Amino acid sequence: MLKIRPVAIDTYPENTAFLPRSDGGYGAEQFQALRKIEICHASNTILATLAIMDDKHLLRPGEIGLGEQAFRRLGLPAGTEVSISQAMPPASLDGVRRKIRGDTLDDAEIASIIRDISRFRYSPMEIAAFLVACAAFMTTQETLALTRAMADVGGKLKWSSPLVVDKHCIGGIPGNRTSMIVVPIVAAHGLIIPKTSSRAITSPSGTADTMEVLANVDISAERMQEIVAKENAVLAWGGRVKLSPADDVLISVERPLRIDTFEQMVASIMSKKLAAGSTHLVIDIPVGPTAKVRNQTEAVRLRKLFEYVASKVGIVVDVVLTDGSQPIGRGVGPVLEARDVMAVLRNDPGAPADLRDRAVMLAGRVLDFDPQLKGGEGHVRAAELLASGAALAAMERLIAAQGPQGVTARPGAFEHEVIAPIDGKVGAIDCHLIARIARLAGAPMEKGAGIDLLCKVGDAIGKGEPLYRIHATSQTGLDFARELAASSSGYDVTA
Amino acid sequence: MLKIRPVAIDTYPENTAFLPRSDGGYGAEQFQALRKIEICHASNTILATLAIMDDKHLLRPGEIGLGEQAFRRLGLPAGTEVSISQAMPPASLDGVRRKIRGDTLDDAEIASIIRDISRFRYSPMEIAAFLVACAAFMTTQETLALTRAMADVGGKLKWSSPLVVDKHCIGGIPGNRTSMIVVPIVAAHGLIIPKTSSRAITSPSGTADTMEVLANVDISAERMQEIVAKENAVLAWGGRVKLSPADDVLISVERPLRIDTFEQMVASIMSKKLAAGSTHLVIDIPVGPTAKVRNQTEAVRLRKLFEYVASKVGIVVDVVLTDGSQPIGRGVGPVLEARDVMAVLRNDPGAPADLRDRAVMLAGRVLDFDPQLKGGEGHVRAAELLASGAALAAMERLIAAQGPQGVTARPGAFEHEVIAPIDGKVGAIDCHLIARIARLAGAPMEKGAGIDLLCKVGDAIGKGEPLYRIHATSQTGLDFARELAASSSGYDVTA
Repeated sequence: MLKIRPVAIDTYPENTAFLPRSDGGYGAEQFQALRKIEICHASNTILATLAIMDDKHLLRPGEIGLGEQAFRRLGLPAGTEVSISQAMPPASLDGVRRKIRGDTLDDAEIASIIRDISRFRYSPMEIAAFLVACAAFMTTQETLALTRAMADVGGKLKWSSPLVVDKHCIGGIPGNRTSMIVVPIVAAHGLIIPKTSSRAITSPSGTADTMEVLANVDISAERMQEIVAKENAVLAWGGRVKLSPADDVLISVERPLRIDTFEQMVASIMSKKLAAGSTHLVIDIPVGPTAKVRNQTEAVRLRKLFEYVASKVGIVVDVVLTDGSQPIGRGVGPVLEARDVMAVLRNDPGAPADLRDRAVMLAGRVLDFDPQLKGGEGHVRAAELLASGAALAAMERLIAAQGPQGVTARPGAFEHEVIAPIDGKVGAIDCHLIARIARLAGAPMEKGAGIDLLCKVGDAIGKGEPLYRIHATSQTGLDFARELAASSSGYDVTA
Repeated sequence: MLKIRPVAIDTYPENTAFLPRSDGGYGAEQFQALRKIEICHASNTILATLAIMDDKHLLRPGEIGLGEQAFRRLGLPAGTEVSISQAMPPASLDGVRRKIRGDTLDDAEIASIIRDISRFRYSPMEIAAFLVACAAFMTTQETLALTRAMADVGGKLKWSSPLVVDKHCIGGIPGNRTSMIVVPIVAAHGLIIPKTSSRAITSPSGTADTMEVLANVDISAERMQEIVAKENAVLAWGGRVKLSPADDVLISVERPLRIDTFEQMVASIMSKKLAAGSTHLVIDIPVGPTAKVRNQTEAVRLRKLFEYVASKVGIVVDVVLTDGSQPIGRGVGPVLEARDVMAVLRNDPGAPADLRDRAVMLAGRVLDFDPQLKGGEGHVRAAELLASGAALAAMERLIAAQGPQGVTARPGAFEHEVIAPIDGKVGAIDCHLIARIARLAGAPMEKGAGIDLLCKVGDAIGKGEPLYRIHATSQTGLDFARELAASSSGYDVTA
């Protein structure tokens, strides 16, 4: 038995435990061979990666140190006695090994892998092994099983309405913050649209990050019910209600490895929609040379996979292929995107037209799910609700209901303009690079960091005129972003 | 610029760096998104995983903490000023992604992946991605390229003799410590056999661990040359001379995932032999139900892959398929194995016959490489050299040359006998389980820990009589091993 002692070290996303190198009773070296230990107290159990603490002042004999993650996940007070043992590798790893050897897994095997992953029993290397083995090939049946398994292990939202609509973009296009316009339009019309979104992982902002500039997004399932009952909608962070938590674990490995197979994408998105209780869903697939989907052939294959899985899990989908050739709107990063969204909702003359048009089109497709509307009327209705100010009013009520932010966040004060190297025309904008530069500037952690795009594809530009402005909240963030922008600006200016 | 400060935390095998959560100049949160940073001082550069230190007493403003691994690898004194940046993912990861998508990689792509891996630029999850992608399929040309690339990045041993023999077992059979008998026999005959071995990673002992019970094995390349010039042989730890260091990194991920494709195995073994300067090599492939190779068909496929790669890299191989149905000898774990080896070399009447016979057979195959011997005479010659005491004398000279251990290590004093549950006969022994129990007892870190097998397959045994004895150097180690042995002893006793 060891007494737990919190250690003020954050090793997110991994649990870390610390043992002194030698403490008489057990050999830390023995544990280190496997590096993963199981820490138990009654029914509380976590797995942790072991580090050996050679500083005798930090850990007393008979103590086990727990990093911040591990301490929080175990959820017991300091000094509690726990027992430790070598963590046995999860039994479901046998399924992963079969998949590595090229076998097809059945529903039960996939369910047990996902259960172990959702309980943090897999290390990043084990998750990578599962993902790469699945990337080699995966049947549609396996994709469906993965979707269901991921939805099953997490929280679920239930709504009383028989029609619960949603809208989802597969991502990859900076500034494409249409959800925050679609949701108030649909809510103003009167359909139920409880939108749960993720925070950015490798992009400069997720819908949750941008909405958080305006309002609280950390909302309990109970409070969501209340807000939706009154406002038809909510724009909340999905992480709070733990929809498809296994997906979040998988994503933490998929993104750095840039594993983005269609099967993983469909399982990821559809599991979250299934858990969120959506019945009707518009899916936006931007297609473009630097988007996630490069061409029409790929787009059709992805569309069909969405349609197959959706039909099996009982969700009606409308898959829309959109132009993904460049960023949407002007702002990239939470504050700058929120500015664009509000400009569109307020019908500002200077609001970015591409963002407005895209959002109205998608809102129209969502409204077309309404049996009360005649076929094809959705688009006109969406445009009316925006133009009339009804959508703005719906957004303002939503912000008030979720809890407005006290302070108005502003774009970062450290600025740098990236200029055109020659006279010419903007030929192309690289979505990947723009996203990376915005991230280096500090987005999404620093809400005010990001990029303000001052011209778009097709615009004429003079040598020395600004292409975009980098905003950062610190000199270091600005320097990081400037450095990358200096070597590759992401803009292709042709004479 | 930050001043480095050593932090007494060992996070083997990963480099870890610690930054305070907020230190004004830069945002630790910004780095954490990618979690990997590059630490630079002039030409010294390492990559490290970032942890956030929330304890203000451990790190002063302007400092960066380095864990023991990272501090050692960077090799600079405390207080040295270093700069940090986000580690860009290695460019060779693009090749890994192509492999994940099912492409074949060319020699240059494989070489650049291996170079980055050997420089610790890949995280465990990235290494897992590479290994699993390769496990899906790998051409013989890729296997060959991998072998050459791994040999190229590390140290190389050069010998003046045109005939440099070696012997290697693919592993998996506890107690199979034949190298320590083969080497002195071959040395006594007069062939050059500079044997470099690994330490155990997931087995209870490697040849280097067992030899270390008797003599120093941490020997520089220069000293190896001197010893081999005088004694024809050396029995050293390969890690010291950094043969195929990329292989060691790959193994650290392969073993926990139990990825053991033949392609990886051949590239791993042949790259080390190539770097070690071997010209002629006997490869021992034990075949058995709980061995690495389960049946004759698999064994032949593996043999052919060894033969193909060996012919291309210019090494003459003789692949021997042996009985891998149960452990060899009696002792499992460094001290107990060393005891068996010395008993065989001393011609003790009680020495394990299976270990002796296997070693003499393999030594005979090695001696058959000697053009001076008539074909097939090797076995008789090997048996003579053992019986005459010449092999023992060669071993004693080798121990003296390498540096004998001052203290004679003894079997662990904490003992437990596992008994037969019924009267009967030993029907089978599970090599995996015996290895795991020995490891839980503390082997190989605790030299005296391990298992003494008191009966073997085919032996009659009475209910309550001991099957084997567990030795541990601590009560905890004994308890761990006992616990597993109680649930699965590894012995199948049939009435």
